[in-house]
Amino acid sequence: MTRRAAIVGGGVIGGGWLARFLLNGWDVAVFDPDPEAERKLSEVLANARRSLPGLYDAALPPEGHLRFCVSLEEAVAGAQWIQESVPERLELKHRVLTQIQAVMANDAVIGSSTSGFKPSELGAGVPRPGQVLVAHPFNPVYLLPVVEVVPHTSAAEDVITGALQTLRSIGMMPLRLRREMDAHVADRFLEAVWREALWLVKDDIATTQEIDDVIRFGFGIRWAQMGLFETYRIAGGEAGMAHFLAQFGPCLKWPWTRLTDVPDLDAALVEKISAQSDAQSGTRSIRELERIRDDNLVALMRALKGRDWASGHTLCEHDARLRRASAAPDWSQPVETAARSVPVDWTDYNGHMNESRYLELFSSATDRCMELIGCDAAYIEAGGSYFTVETHLQHLGETHAGATVRVTTQLLEGSGKRLHILNRMFDAGGELLATAEHLLIHVSLATRRATPPGAELRQRLAELQSRHAALPRPERLHCGKREESV
Amino acid sequence: MTRRAAIVGGGVIGGGWLARFLLNGWDVAVFDPDPEAERKLSEVLANARRSLPGLYDAALPPEGHLRFCVSLEEAVAGAQWIQESVPERLELKHRVLTQIQAVMANDAVIGSSTSGFKPSELGAGVPRPGQVLVAHPFNPVYLLPVVEVVPHTSAAEDVITGALQTLRSIGMMPLRLRREMDAHVADRFLEAVWREALWLVKDDIATTQEIDDVIRFGFGIRWAQMGLFETYRIAGGEAGMAHFLAQFGPCLKWPWTRLTDVPDLDAALVEKISAQSDAQSGTRSIRELERIRDDNLVALMRALKGRDWASGHTLCEHDARLRRASAAPDWSQPVETAARSVPVDWTDYNGHMNESRYLELFSSATDRCMELIGCDAAYIEAGGSYFTVETHLQHLGETHAGATVRVTTQLLEGSGKRLHILNRMFDAGGELLATAEHLLIHVSLATRRATPPGAELRQRLAELQSRHAALPRPERLHCGKREESV
Repeated sequence: MTRRAAIVGGGVIGGGWLARFLLNGWDVAVFDPDPEAERKLSEVLANARRSLPGLYDAALPPEGHLRFCVSLEEAVAGAQWIQESVPERLELKHRVLTQIQAVMANDAVIGSSTSGFKPSELGAGVPRPGQVLVAHPFNPVYLLPVVEVVPHTSAAEDVITGALQTLRSIGMMPLRLRREMDAHVADRFLEAVWREALWLVKDDIATTQEIDDVIRFGFGIRWAQMGLFETYRIAGGEAGMAHFLAQFGPCLKWPWTRLTDVPDLDAALVEKISAQSDAQSGTRSIRELERIRDDNLVALMRALKGRDWASGHTLCEHDARLRRASAAPDWSQPVETAARSVPVDWTDYNGHMNESRYLELFSSATDRCMELIGCDAAYIEAGGSYFTVETHLQHLGETHAGATVRVTTQLLEGSGKRLHILNRMFDAGGELLATAEHLLIHVSLATRRATPPGAELRQRLAELQSRHAALPRPERLHCGKREESV
Repeated sequence: MTRRAAIVGGGVIGGGWLARFLLNGWDVAVFDPDPEAERKLSEVLANARRSLPGLYDAALPPEGHLRFCVSLEEAVAGAQWIQESVPERLELKHRVLTQIQAVMANDAVIGSSTSGFKPSELGAGVPRPGQVLVAHPFNPVYLLPVVEVVPHTSAAEDVITGALQTLRSIGMMPLRLRREMDAHVADRFLEAVWREALWLVKDDIATTQEIDDVIRFGFGIRWAQMGLFETYRIAGGEAGMAHFLAQFGPCLKWPWTRLTDVPDLDAALVEKISAQSDAQSGTRSIRELERIRDDNLVALMRALKGRDWASGHTLCEHDARLRRASAAPDWSQPVETAARSVPVDWTDYNGHMNESRYLELFSSATDRCMELIGCDAAYIEAGGSYFTVETHLQHLGETHAGATVRVTTQLLEGSGKRLHILNRMFDAGGELLATAEHLLIHVSLATRRATPPGAELRQRLAELQSRHAALPRPERLHCGKREESV
């Protein structure tokens, strides 16, 4: 059955909803009186098409059909879900929601993206308040999973259940609040932080950059994986949450923030928090939680390292520092092109380093080899590079997280367009764990076709190849037996 | 030259400092009168040894030498850096800092881990306040890079510069504050959020779990890569930060948080924030910032997916949903074992999908093939699995981020301990992009040695192999020409 959603009110938020529904196979009809709406929504959709599908390790269903409508009635007719994202003015919301309810299917549900209004406020001005629920998402809506769901008190339980299911079906993580609240939950935190930040900038304690840095190089990384309470539970150690509260509680009396209306941390509140924290994290020991946290942090920071951004940039800088300290390569032997510790997130269900991580390591060794022969960042920037056309991997032993490994590279052939190398990976004791034979072809990055390397590179390659010519070669080579074309 | 650090005061924070210095090659001497100190510090160090080295793509220097000392004097003698992490009592800090300064080298620097005291407060009770600076880290200290650095007003500039350099040399990201402030900067935010959270729990709006979820499934992921101001700059669009403030400003008047002392968002403050935000992010357009943000979010969430945690868990659930919707395999042909979109973070400096990502994709196809033949999660849980011993990859065309690709698997041989398969990767138009021939050996996960598969698996393999026996085979196979032993 084709599922149909209506998007009422475009902009960045409406566009994000549109993208989520459309890319998950829903037909989507849009109504927004803004003459710029189609352009704005198309920009959001382009961003979503670029980033959302790759999140998954399975293919999304074929995209639904997108239609821009000239009237609200046309957009809403036949939709099972209507998402309202008009500006935050209550009388406008009342008018639009009432118009929608006049034409929508009997069993349709309206989600309102409101960040400020409670369901009781929205419901006060519409005929069927039980069919309007707050579904408050976060920007970018097409990527961030959380959506705060707050139903009206008159909503039927099956309407709520169905709504939660719909939101999950488009990849979201609906969080149903137990009571309505001004600004729901998340924005209250954002508001508290925002107010504090305004004071810090106003009082010249920190700049916007410094405030952003203290967040993204510190507790921001922590909060991508565990929230406030689970993090503090770990800080409290085996003694538990109540112990943490006893230590931390007195700080609440300190005149730290400008924000000073403080709840009384009495026995009842301590007991409540402890009990909730036990229910949340109590099945795991603090030691387990620490390791989960650390593995998450390593994976997150290494992910950012691939982008050379925020804490990932700090890691890149330290890499450069570590590499500067290493010795110049000795070309009388296979040269060392990688040396590292196996990260905790490289392990798979077999309890050892996953095969793709072997190639990740060998690939970085090949990169280093290219750099050493003169195909470095500047050379690549100028438009030449090598593409791998063939690789043969052999596994001789297992490797585990925490192991120190090194890779050496032997030049088998470096002539014409071809670069044929053998990478060998060893453990700390010198035992051979795996080999990788690679055949690369020199290309022009402009034409994406094979082309001879520059004169300087050719000369350096010839020289280095002659130094490796005397080294013993493997009995049997596996690459280069076919004619290559890139 | 050997560098020497002294750790005064153990615990979780002191232990984190110890690990950072030690794993970056410093000799470390520790003093903590707690009889449990050595055990506690060893636990932190074990966590750090497990997680820190793998952050880097280069090897760390050899670990320094660790010494537990019976006196403060012994620990501090000869140290270039002394890190003080004793409990947060000012008179205790004064006493310990004074003792340290009595015996430390003339040019040594003391970093204080204090979260609450300002340099002026620390300095009021010590002989040389210019050599004590606040160096406030975040837990886990061995992983999170940020450290708030606040020098005493009497500190010489070269002392400060040297301290920042030392902190960078152990992989940290020192953030020098421009003025001292109660609780520095980061803890003011944490405090504001913490107070708001206490109200929400107390008033039964949300549980600790719900609060944590709204953070880690939402703005927490955002804050791992961009902070408050850069995020809002994007939300403001091309109109800029002043436009965002004009839109968002009025919300400050709303009675949202319990925390209501609000700065006046006058023209001067708007101008200050806009100018700082321009300086911070102004070299990039909003469109560029959006793409950087999205690429970061994709990389972060996919990293958490590998851990099946937080927003990564949401992705895993959606994968399962997407896979349920796919058709049963047709064994008259090579079976489809993967179909996906190429994520934005799979691209390398050559502007195409990195070779290791090909193997990541092929490896997931092999996993799916194993599942289809009966070597599924339950089988693996019971102690049997396949290990890859040999892989041959051939690249025939390029693939880029956003492309939809699919992989088919052909069984070449599934008898005895051997599983020999051919994976082929196609683009959306059906063009062959790459092939991967894999030889796997069935193993016992207990002994890690080759062993025949279970009877049911053998039977199913034989049946499926016979169905693939009629398919055309590649002219030339590359794996299995040597004797394998696992």
